[in-house]
Amino acid sequence: MTIRISIIGFGAVGQGVADVLMRTDYPIKVVAIADSRGAVVDADGVDLASALQRKRETGVVAVADTDRGAAADTAGMTALDVIEGVDHEIVVEATPTDITTGGIGLSYIRRAFECKRHVVTSNKGPLVVKYTELCELARKNNRYFRFEATVGGAMPAINLSNETLAGNRIISIEGVLNGTCNYILTRMDDESVSYEHALGEAQELGIAEADPSADVDGIDTAAKIVILANSVFGMDVGYDDVDVTGITKITPESFKLAKEEGHTIKLIGEIRDGVLKVAPKIVPRNHPLSIGGTFNLASIQTELAGRITIGGIGAGSVETASAILSDILWIEQTIRD
Amino acid sequence: MTIRISIIGFGAVGQGVADVLMRTDYPIKVVAIADSRGAVVDADGVDLASALQRKRETGVVAVADTDRGAAADTAGMTALDVIEGVDHEIVVEATPTDITTGGIGLSYIRRAFECKRHVVTSNKGPLVVKYTELCELARKNNRYFRFEATVGGAMPAINLSNETLAGNRIISIEGVLNGTCNYILTRMDDESVSYEHALGEAQELGIAEADPSADVDGIDTAAKIVILANSVFGMDVGYDDVDVTGITKITPESFKLAKEEGHTIKLIGEIRDGVLKVAPKIVPRNHPLSIGGTFNLASIQTELAGRITIGGIGAGSVETASAILSDILWIEQTIRD
Repeated sequence: MTIRISIIGFGAVGQGVADVLMRTDYPIKVVAIADSRGAVVDADGVDLASALQRKRETGVVAVADTDRGAAADTAGMTALDVIEGVDHEIVVEATPTDITTGGIGLSYIRRAFECKRHVVTSNKGPLVVKYTELCELARKNNRYFRFEATVGGAMPAINLSNETLAGNRIISIEGVLNGTCNYILTRMDDESVSYEHALGEAQELGIAEADPSADVDGIDTAAKIVILANSVFGMDVGYDDVDVTGITKITPESFKLAKEEGHTIKLIGEIRDGVLKVAPKIVPRNHPLSIGGTFNLASIQTELAGRITIGGIGAGSVETASAILSDILWIEQTIRD
Repeated sequence: MTIRISIIGFGAVGQGVADVLMRTDYPIKVVAIADSRGAVVDADGVDLASALQRKRETGVVAVADTDRGAAADTAGMTALDVIEGVDHEIVVEATPTDITTGGIGLSYIRRAFECKRHVVTSNKGPLVVKYTELCELARKNNRYFRFEATVGGAMPAINLSNETLAGNRIISIEGVLNGTCNYILTRMDDESVSYEHALGEAQELGIAEADPSADVDGIDTAAKIVILANSVFGMDVGYDDVDVTGITKITPESFKLAKEEGHTIKLIGEIRDGVLKVAPKIVPRNHPLSIGGTFNLASIQTELAGRITIGGIGAGSVETASAILSDILWIEQTIRD
């Protein structure tokens, strides 16, 4: 059986999904792609190479009016029209993250479940704001909700905890969950430079954004901790339940002191005894959490298996798309059986 | 639905399974336990606490003749009688490993599939010697074959590669897969002691056996590499296909040289371009494979997700039992759906 998907949101992650599907040979057909300015729909499968090229060249995924012809019936279609009106099984929701309101993705996911579609998302916003409601809506409509890509890009911490480690009660999770912060801290440690210097370098390399606050203030890490708390620990928490400290106040002197003791400093997100926390922490240099560069790593303490660590590249459109692909294939296999 | 299992082999791992099932509350009923000297059978569920106590005190799991009474019908039953004659869904095969012949476990697993039972095993022998035949037999009888516990104790490298990372073609795997070797090498690195000294220390602590050759000659690591090659890469290889070098020739001088370059030495099992190899390797100190102590770690290079690392405690009866439990629960959930 071929499973039919739509891609809603065609930025780095949505394009990564199209890219990955072109490279692989799975029974997955993209029947629609929507961005904020229109949509392209084809029940026989959207031509992904053309869609990627059009988006790159014009900034819009929809076919221009003058070129429509066969695609004329999709003129003026929106993402919501796709979710509601195009026959398909899975909505891949990859719109921009807004962890305060949930953003437009929240309404798309709600509508997808109401229209009896499964949802795979990389968007933290809806999960931070309305996790419990969305899971309930999925259950009520007998549809699956998968979101591995929301935490740590290619690092499969959620599905590992909930499926691969089935039977193991999870006691606590600590993680290096933000590649930008980890890059900056690794440079401060290796080169004894200031925070400002390391940030500037990260910005030049495109690892940090012009406004880096979502990363360096710990906001992104906190959002991931909320998602892990809800999905792995069965909690019902939001952003305000996390005690958050970022990395902007860390000095070269702190690194010097840590180094003298054989330690380094990492921004650690942590869930332990029902308490959610994000803060810089001293980590022994031979501890798995001392991992450097833009790598992410979660250290999962289990009741039976002891400590399990899982690491992977924390960002990147193809890496994030690979987590989305795993979730799509999980649904495909589950509904086929 | 409650799933019924037998435990065949009641050494450290078999006892670990009983121990773990007593601590948890899953719909799993042990209807028989067999060791090399007899069996205890109870369709209502074997009393696990009594079975563990009896084994510890007498060395035998079967109820002594004089105490039989209600259990009289199980007098003289063997493991094979249990596999063939006791109604149950899953055989948990945990007999001693023999990677040359496959050992008695090989015939138990064959018989289990022929009797239409699923199999979960921690036993490397049958998988190293007859992987392809056993998978074929499972398929022919429409039964599941799960063996996460054979590689790296609590570290779920197989199910992670084949399920959690679904959709990702695996390019190569490198791993620290033997806790005893890793302990010895970590001590040689930390304390600049000789191989003989570190081995003696490991033997005193019970981390190395009196005859340590299976570990230190790389045999155990090679067996795990064969299982990974067959199960993750779809190869059809055996022990003789691995190029194996152990750790007995490593000198403190080698560590000194490595240290000067910021490196350490690890026994690495590796599958790359269809070639299987086990040998000591120089590893940068900040690389995930530089993990110390008795920890195991696999570094999995994927086409889409880049490098994924998975680490966990490499041995221990409860840790290994936790991997068996995850496999049992996977089967329980799959046949229930």
